[in-house]
Amino acid sequence: MSSHPAEAGGPTRRRLIDVAVELFKQHSVAGTSLQMISDELGLTKSAIYHHFRTRDELLTAVMEPLISEVAAMVAAAETRRGPHARADHLLRDYAALAAANRELIPLFTGDPAVIALLRTRTDWAAVVERQMALLAGVAPGLGGQVKAALVMSGIASAAGADYGDLDEASLREQLIAAGRRTLGLRGR
Amino acid sequence: MSSHPAEAGGPTRRRLIDVAVELFKQHSVAGTSLQMISDELGLTKSAIYHHFRTRDELLTAVMEPLISEVAAMVAAAETRRGPHARADHLLRDYAALAAANRELIPLFTGDPAVIALLRTRTDWAAVVERQMALLAGVAPGLGGQVKAALVMSGIASAAGADYGDLDEASLREQLIAAGRRTLGLRGR
Repeated sequence: MSSHPAEAGGPTRRRLIDVAVELFKQHSVAGTSLQMISDELGLTKSAIYHHFRTRDELLTAVMEPLISEVAAMVAAAETRRGPHARADHLLRDYAALAAANRELIPLFTGDPAVIALLRTRTDWAAVVERQMALLAGVAPGLGGQVKAALVMSGIASAAGADYGDLDEASLREQLIAAGRRTLGLRGR
Repeated sequence: MSSHPAEAGGPTRRRLIDVAVELFKQHSVAGTSLQMISDELGLTKSAIYHHFRTRDELLTAVMEPLISEVAAMVAAAETRRGPHARADHLLRDYAALAAANRELIPLFTGDPAVIALLRTRTDWAAVVERQMALLAGVAPGLGGQVKAALVMSGIASAAGADYGDLDEASLREQLIAAGRRTLGLRGR
């Protein structure tokens, strides 16, 4: 595509993201620097700068599609009638997302680099807040908030636990069942 | 105590641990190096080496008292008769520990440095496994395991969430109530 010689054989955007995700898993996001990513690829930093100028730009590229999915599921859930139907809709979609991305989603729960990025991305923080509000809407007050927080981060972490040879559909169904119990949703 | 001049005004063990915990909160455990800790204190690495030779030795000093508490509560819960009483005993103690250490406990859920340390500390990993088994014992098979994983990490993360001006006792009671619902425990 480009005729710039420095790009010949350079890393593709996709390859950079894949290596970054591997290092995020090993060292957490906050514990991974652009330098570590270029070392891992045996490249100079400038070869990476062509695609990403900071670790946060790379993290953004990893998280953007996930947040977009959450935003879409939040918007769909918000069209449902009544707090139970709304919470259940979101719970099902969120459990499916967690089960489908069981190696990726747990990386982002509580990571300081992710929390710091969310603070600058008020559009993302607003999506997470709407997600919390939907889950907390089943029960009023503090009880609803604590249950929503437990389900949000619990599902993300529990999806990443080791259950041996468990298929995605079974994991999803178990996460939904556990989340429904916590929130006091009847299901169906 | 010591007459070595380099120690005059040197960091106390307690001060090192406090600074380490602050940096763990900002950068995750995996994202914090001994170098960062000595920079924060304005010290040379050798001033720290007197107390801790590696980041893992420092992490061990932070986690050791918590793991001891978990080990004691696991042992106490295991003396109870029947899976429901055992799970409920552990849940209450674990929620109290999480509420009392709401800034500390969430740091350790899913942090790669903590997971790596648990792998080398088989005595600690055994405690965590017994904890999981107690919570999972309420329901057989996969359902029990997923619920236990959701409660274990969910309580740790939910304890650290921001509920405004919430006192410790109220937080503890809400965590217990949410955990009981998830596990299917009646309480009392």
